[in-house]
Amino acid sequence: MSDNEISYPSSLGRSTRTTITLFDEQIQDLMGNVGFGELAFWLAARRRPTPEQVTLFEACLVALADHGFTPTAIATRMTYLSAPDSIQGALASGLLGGGSRFLGVTEDCGSYLAAAVDASGLGPDSTDDDWDELARRLVTEARETKRFIPGLGHPNHKDGDPRTPRIYEIAEQTGTYGPHLALFAAIGRVHPDIMGRTLPLNGAGVCGAALADLGLPVDLLRGFALLARTAGLVGQIAEEKLHPMAMDAYLHIDRHSTYIDPATDPQ
Amino acid sequence: MSDNEISYPSSLGRSTRTTITLFDEQIQDLMGNVGFGELAFWLAARRRPTPEQVTLFEACLVALADHGFTPTAIATRMTYLSAPDSIQGALASGLLGGGSRFLGVTEDCGSYLAAAVDASGLGPDSTDDDWDELARRLVTEARETKRFIPGLGHPNHKDGDPRTPRIYEIAEQTGTYGPHLALFAAIGRVHPDIMGRTLPLNGAGVCGAALADLGLPVDLLRGFALLARTAGLVGQIAEEKLHPMAMDAYLHIDRHSTYIDPATDPQ
Amino acid sequence: MSDNEISYPSSLGRSTRTTITLFDEQIQDLMGNVGFGELAFWLAARRRPTPEQVTLFEACLVALADHGFTPTAIATRMTYLSAPDSIQGALASGLLGGGSRFLGVTEDCGSYLAAAVDASGLGPDSTDDDWDELARRLVTEARETKRFIPGLGHPNHKDGDPRTPRIYEIAEQTGTYGPHLALFAAIGRVHPDIMGRTLPLNGAGVCGAALADLGLPVDLLRGFALLARTAGLVGQIAEEKLHPMAMDAYLHIDRHSTYIDPATDPQ
Amino acid sequence: MSDNEISYPSSLGRSTRTTITLFDEQIQDLMGNVGFGELAFWLAARRRPTPEQVTLFEACLVALADHGFTPTAIATRMTYLSAPDSIQGALASGLLGGGSRFLGVTEDCGSYLAAAVDASGLGPDSTDDDWDELARRLVTEARETKRFIPGLGHPNHKDGDPRTPRIYEIAEQTGTYGPHLALFAAIGRVHPDIMGRTLPLNGAGVCGAALADLGLPVDLLRGFALLARTAGLVGQIAEEKLHPMAMDAYLHIDRHSTYIDPATDPQ
Repeated sequence: MSDNEISYPSSLGRSTRTTITLFDEQIQDLMGNVGFGELAFWLAARRRPTPEQVTLFEACLVALADHGFTPTAIATRMTYLSAPDSIQGALASGLLGGGSRFLGVTEDCGSYLAAAVDASGLGPDSTDDDWDELARRLVTEARETKRFIPGLGHPNHKDGDPRTPRIYEIAEQTGTYGPHLALFAAIGRVHPDIMGRTLPLNGAGVCGAALADLGLPVDLLRGFALLARTAGLVGQIAEEKLHPMAMDAYLHIDRHSTYIDPATDPQ
Repeated sequence: MSDNEISYPSSLGRSTRTTITLFDEQIQDLMGNVGFGELAFWLAARRRPTPEQVTLFEACLVALADHGFTPTAIATRMTYLSAPDSIQGALASGLLGGGSRFLGVTEDCGSYLAAAVDASGLGPDSTDDDWDELARRLVTEARETKRFIPGLGHPNHKDGDPRTPRIYEIAEQTGTYGPHLALFAAIGRVHPDIMGRTLPLNGAGVCGAALADLGLPVDLLRGFALLARTAGLVGQIAEEKLHPMAMDAYLHIDRHSTYIDPATDPQ
Repeated sequence: MSDNEISYPSSLGRSTRTTITLFDEQIQDLMGNVGFGELAFWLAARRRPTPEQVTLFEACLVALADHGFTPTAIATRMTYLSAPDSIQGALASGLLGGGSRFLGVTEDCGSYLAAAVDASGLGPDSTDDDWDELARRLVTEARETKRFIPGLGHPNHKDGDPRTPRIYEIAEQTGTYGPHLALFAAIGRVHPDIMGRTLPLNGAGVCGAALADLGLPVDLLRGFALLARTAGLVGQIAEEKLHPMAMDAYLHIDRHSTYIDPATDPQ
Repeated sequence: MSDNEISYPSSLGRSTRTTITLFDEQIQDLMGNVGFGELAFWLAARRRPTPEQVTLFEACLVALADHGFTPTAIATRMTYLSAPDSIQGALASGLLGGGSRFLGVTEDCGSYLAAAVDASGLGPDSTDDDWDELARRLVTEARETKRFIPGLGHPNHKDGDPRTPRIYEIAEQTGTYGPHLALFAAIGRVHPDIMGRTLPLNGAGVCGAALADLGLPVDLLRGFALLARTAGLVGQIAEEKLHPMAMDAYLHIDRHSTYIDPATDPQ
């Protein structure tokens, strides 16, 4: 490829001397007419969502925005304590905890359900019995291979996560209920008989199912959890400015440090 | 302070076995009833915005979300190319460019205007003549001290940034127009006479003025620019998956590298 | 656990009013007597390395420090262009590319070899024939399962990576040659017959083998590649200050952007 | 500039099919012959340091590598707890705290001293009396403008930081003592009379002075503090694997959270 043939394709932001466009729409036409959540959906899915889809999408973002003093919030506050001149660093520091353990369930659950739905041949016309049968197969397989089903169980909300029924309610009200939420509900119905105990469908998981039903790329669902969390982390920084706690937490940890000798340390 | 007296204050996310709350509101009541932009405002300002305030706020977020192949977007795509397993790393990598030069104008402009407004004694009842007088003083001072006024001028949109009139229009329609936008407009009116040339009021600057008028903490305005940009960067990653360009750009750079000898290099 | 029983164990840095210690060594005794690479090894392995181990360890760090305009270096330079006030952000931005594709080979290769060595029962007294037999089994298995062997092959150095023979030379000279390097060499000997073509043992892979032979934790080898790369990225920032190229690269990319319409875009 | 004229200058890593070079040196010649600290110096300063310079440089890196449970170490451990799959994210998260407050003193002190030395006309032949006179002027000016002198004072080591005399000792032994260390020492001598109390010269500050004496770019000194800290953070992650504390610290913080009502909150 000669240099003169180089081209970098994009549908996103462009500008000329007099215009700024996104997807070839004038920015001034988007401003005031397209909501921020709506634009985030559009940028990722490359199609403008319906108002009903926006409602479900924003409900997921609200559900995932903040959970108080999580490890990610603590990382952001510690970084802000150390480097208050760099808000971008404090935000990035917290987002970097959006990995496999605490914030990855949304993507893991959405991807898991999408793979199962795609392989099943089931679709919008399938019945609850169809979904229950598929769910029974999946739960049995998970038990036999000693794998967890993403989105099932919660360390705290053992009797039910308040976000889960609300997402189902909104999906039904807005007509956005689809196969991923259907399969996730079926897993909730059938797993107690097979596993011998009842686990809650958690909020991160149900958001993964909902985002998959909205047609968002399932290998990018973590990105939406991170977008939601960015709003939470801005709030954490705003609160740290008003009611600082990071210094106290740091001093608590430092003062309760105890020495262990590596030489006698059973590794 | 004894350990038993330690407490870490927060108004943000908390949970019990059966509830999740933000600002003592049940999460299920927020979901579906509070938009994502609205929640982001609430989390940072610690008060629920009016619908009119949400409209102006989201218009700013839309204005700032994406500008195509900026250095931050390129950083995100390069990081995604290197470490596709870690979307959080690719997002964080791009956000880290949200510093003084390319993304800091929003905060710089809002802070600059807020300091001037606070020191002036002017307020909602002041007239355009009052604002023009203050603006004349500021522009003259900037010229004499050879300082830039944040938000004034744009490398590309020399005849006007399309976002600027739109923000003024929305602020007037929603009744959210306030002293920061008033002073910024006055700077736009008076500077050509004093400086001998006409510079545009840029979009990042006008968003800083609007966010300050909304009562958001001016030392945190960069946080909102970063929140907006997070949506853009998720879109950049989604597009890189479909239409990759980072490998081509990397190879272009690598192939056009030329060696310079530090020994003979005039430093 | 009551608060009064809380304790956070550590062997690393501690300080009193008059002392600073690492592993209970006075910092002033370490300074000038322990090299930086030596300390990095000690901090991670929790035991002081021998001078011979330090030589091999630092040779690996030197091998991995910089490779010019890689995607990680470009990310660092783009972030520095955008936010020159935050060197930590520019460094972090580059390190975040240290993931599965470009910088992960060191850890992947070390872990792969360690698992094979551990399962094999082979050890320091095994012969080249023993290692060849094990290697034949591994390469055959990789071919049958269509998996890559980490560290085998290089997009550029198809006839051999100059770092590989040098690591073997240093390992032999310093008496630090061990089972992981032995197995990696055997893979180099036996794979052409089985695979029908000759691939080079690459430098990132041989460093993974060497670091595993040094007894460093194999699930942390990426950390050493990142430490090495930090030195390279500091160099990249120093050079960007003297001979900036990020603005030119950004403008090149921006100017060669071409619009694609998502509506007609075959996804 | 036409595309065919584009070139990106660099003296750092390059490779051909058969070679890898840094500064036009073959990588295999550097490996085993150049230490890691030496290479880091070379990459940043663009000239190979003498062995004496390497000794002082590595002593600074050792002094700055780890300080136990600092906010940056806590951020790294929290991020590792959340996203154990991404070591690069955990490292980056900690480095992002390398800003103005906790890790910036090295650069602030080096820059401050360099500006004063450059403006003074003093040099290698100046006497202690010359430096004392300059120091008296600086301390007086700082007192009058109510500014802090970077590197002066320590929250903990009020009677002296053990790293400071050691750096002076090494600088004298290696013949690398220069004007920045001379001025810093003078500040230590003269400030008690002017300020009415005795503050220690802290370790981060003395390292800034030493790094400036080594001729490293003073606007990049934070980069060396970050390089040193990277080794410390790899050690923190290694220890978190063996002796986890992040979950306990997170639970402690979460359990001691108390709600504050924003409505009645005096802001």
